[in-house]
Amino acid sequence: MNNSVDKIDQLKIGMTTTYSRIITDTDIKSFADISGDNNPVHMNDEFAKESRFGGRIAHGLLSASFFSALFGTKLPGSGCVYVSQSLKFLRPVYINDTVNASVTIKAIDKKKRRIFFETVCTVKSKKVISGEAEIYLP
Amino acid sequence: MNNSVDKIDQLKIGMTTTYSRIITDTDIKSFADISGDNNPVHMNDEFAKESRFGGRIAHGLLSASFFSALFGTKLPGSGCVYVSQSLKFLRPVYINDTVNASVTIKAIDKKKRRIFFETVCTVKSKKVISGEAEIYLP
Repeated sequence: MNNSVDKIDQLKIGMTTTYSRIITDTDIKSFADISGDNNPVHMNDEFAKESRFGGRIAHGLLSASFFSALFGTKLPGSGCVYVSQSLKFLRPVYINDTVNASVTIKAIDKKKRRIFFETVCTVKSKKVISGEAEIYLP
Repeated sequence: MNNSVDKIDQLKIGMTTTYSRIITDTDIKSFADISGDNNPVHMNDEFAKESRFGGRIAHGLLSASFFSALFGTKLPGSGCVYVSQSLKFLRPVYINDTVNASVTIKAIDKKKRRIFFETVCTVKSKKVISGEAEIYLP
């Protein structure tokens, strides 16, 4: 075993990992609770039905949080530091939608130990969130 | 009473609103639960003590979620649509830190009904997150 292997040397452009999760009513209520965002479009069936979305939707940052999960637990994994994240919210996510989050390495700066990712969430093969992230690997 | 007042006409550049919240251990565990991000730097005291942070830190997107709360409930308030958000994670947020989130209108495009915000979180007057957001007002 060689414990001195540098994790960044094992990373390559194009590496990707995914995480799928069904958004539940409980998830949305928990997110509202910890964020303080109880916008009725997330919380109130009657209000949401009358809105442009036609039903209650998940908070955009709830789906985006799956990127954090992928970075922190899979690629590059524990110990990494979140430097930045950009997010475009392209389509609504509804209760019981299955969100597929994926992060893909687009560039690596070994000197500065930075990894640059494309980050995407899809629902039924349609992009609901796109963006980019930068991760520092101490 | 004039119910036909257009909300966007009441918005002005420089308008700002804030939200302060103490980050608790329970918030971090809830966020880990709904995101799936159980990176030990958030969850494991021993691991976190040995890390560059010297203790357990909150998920960056947990503090960022307070921007969502401000947009959805205060400025411009319910009914608005989150178009985009950029985030730079500048400093760690620890358990029991009080996070002060603020959003400030930087530009308004009345024709496209878009509002552009500067978004900042501070802890003890130091920036922990900076970024920008775009909101659509149907």
